[in-house]
Amino acid sequence: MDVATLQYLLGMVGTVAFAVTGVLAVTPRGIDLFGACVLGLITAIGGGTIRDLILGVPVFWAADLNYIWVALAASFVAFLTERLLTRKEIYRTMLYLDALGLSMFAIQAAQKVMWIEFGMPLAPILMGVLTAIGGGLLRDVLAGQPTLLMRRELYAIPVTCGCVLYVVGLSWLPAYPVEFGITCSLFILVLRSAAIYWDLHVPLWLTTQSREKDQDEEN
Amino acid sequence: MDVATLQYLLGMVGTVAFAVTGVLAVTPRGIDLFGACVLGLITAIGGGTIRDLILGVPVFWAADLNYIWVALAASFVAFLTERLLTRKEIYRTMLYLDALGLSMFAIQAAQKVMWIEFGMPLAPILMGVLTAIGGGLLRDVLAGQPTLLMRRELYAIPVTCGCVLYVVGLSWLPAYPVEFGITCSLFILVLRSAAIYWDLHVPLWLTTQSREKDQDEEN
Amino acid sequence: MDVATLQYLLGMVGTVAFAVTGVLAVTPRGIDLFGACVLGLITAIGGGTIRDLILGVPVFWAADLNYIWVALAASFVAFLTERLLTRKEIYRTMLYLDALGLSMFAIQAAQKVMWIEFGMPLAPILMGVLTAIGGGLLRDVLAGQPTLLMRRELYAIPVTCGCVLYVVGLSWLPAYPVEFGITCSLFILVLRSAAIYWDLHVPLWLTTQSREKDQDEEN
Repeated sequence: MDVATLQYLLGMVGTVAFAVTGVLAVTPRGIDLFGACVLGLITAIGGGTIRDLILGVPVFWAADLNYIWVALAASFVAFLTERLLTRKEIYRTMLYLDALGLSMFAIQAAQKVMWIEFGMPLAPILMGVLTAIGGGLLRDVLAGQPTLLMRRELYAIPVTCGCVLYVVGLSWLPAYPVEFGITCSLFILVLRSAAIYWDLHVPLWLTTQSREKDQDEEN
Repeated sequence: MDVATLQYLLGMVGTVAFAVTGVLAVTPRGIDLFGACVLGLITAIGGGTIRDLILGVPVFWAADLNYIWVALAASFVAFLTERLLTRKEIYRTMLYLDALGLSMFAIQAAQKVMWIEFGMPLAPILMGVLTAIGGGLLRDVLAGQPTLLMRRELYAIPVTCGCVLYVVGLSWLPAYPVEFGITCSLFILVLRSAAIYWDLHVPLWLTTQSREKDQDEEN
Repeated sequence: MDVATLQYLLGMVGTVAFAVTGVLAVTPRGIDLFGACVLGLITAIGGGTIRDLILGVPVFWAADLNYIWVALAASFVAFLTERLLTRKEIYRTMLYLDALGLSMFAIQAAQKVMWIEFGMPLAPILMGVLTAIGGGLLRDVLAGQPTLLMRRELYAIPVTCGCVLYVVGLSWLPAYPVEFGITCSLFILVLRSAAIYWDLHVPLWLTTQSREKDQDEEN
């Protein structure tokens, strides 16, 4: 099995993980099968879709519908087996697979942006982060729950660090793009896994205190 | 009057219905005339706009601004006559006209996607559904109310059934695209009208229970 | 210093003001440094980005990353100096700079749309308004707070008036596009500044009353 095939298979694993964690993120709010499949699909392909719109290239799934089939099937199964998947140890495994998807999709996106030399050097980082978290943001907005940006979870920050490392590093070591890409993916995976394992959060001194006690009446 | 003219006129009726139901969906939350017009317009043209962005074709209203004029005028009138339109029997009529718009826009979108052979066979279904419900999703998100995906309303599911029927059917009966398109539109219209008439919802066993009793404090 | 350079510099001042007011709009809800930078950036460049996607032209910041650098730096500084910036007199100054950005970006967007003759005469107005308020709408949606459209603030209405004046006026006085553009920008700036200074709102008779007392349980 060559590198491209392995990357493709890992991409499908990441798609499954995104769809499943996407569905599990909304089932506690009460949702029907249709809504679960739509939100699972959006979590899986939303970030890459917005990225491709901004880059002005055809959306990635138009040429390879497997991303959609896999995301829909995974969402369907996740909805049906939700009680099983939310068991602590299984859910943890899904979080690690989600981290795998995160790390791959981010670096792949940065590669894609550098390849077409779009808005160098900032855009590869922005698009890497957008690809990784865009689907989850869309899902949370459509499900009416607080987005990632309002939580102190260490989710987007590992991705940003990895993408910065990738873009900066490649300008120093342009000879090994594939190897360095894999290294940066692993870097993101390790950081994010550490955040899952030790339940790490953004330290409070990097956060403003919520001051919205009495705001709910106003709205 | 030929088929194209009839289709165009029905499309305008659908645009009016989308804008009016869009405005009526947000007026209970307290909104000013400007916000009502913006949200009515977004409800009417939002889904088709996102579809065209994803397809990479010019947005449909750039070439024919009548969609915008009609949506803005309908929103304006709907805001002013809101007390009249929310009377039970009139509101019901608007819901049926909304169902007419839904059924036409979905199948027209599926046709458009099949015509440019984009992501066959899944994309015509996805884009049909997106065109039908995208505007309403955008409106609900901007108005800060729960989206369609979190309710048990039978709204998107009739559309999905109709689009699946259309794509699958055309691969068996490719000789009659226009007639079959009209049939599938009627199919959606009948399903959705039945849902309105008998107040049908997604059965509870296809829904996860809401478990968010004490979550509001956390957020 | 020629007109183009001045316009560019004022554009950067507007970008700073958008990013800073964007960050200050979300800090009361409790947010970390990363989220603040993302939301500040989105406030500053979100509207123009959506505009360019709809127009089908390359996003404006791809060719000139200064918009991104400036927005990120301004967001970073705004997060750190938040206690200083929310002092009443300084915050007021930021609001006026935000109004300056608003008035420039709206008319520049209308100019851009007229230049490529896209959806005349309505699209220049719509895109002018979208450019001015789109970023703020995105920010509010991602931060989970009520958007501009649900408040009675006089923010989008001055922009709309200015864009209408610009498009209608240019069809009567096509000989002086630059001078007339500056006039319309000043018109928006004056209207919006008046709204800030006297704390003006949309009059209540142009607003529907909120009737959602007992709705929170339902959702």
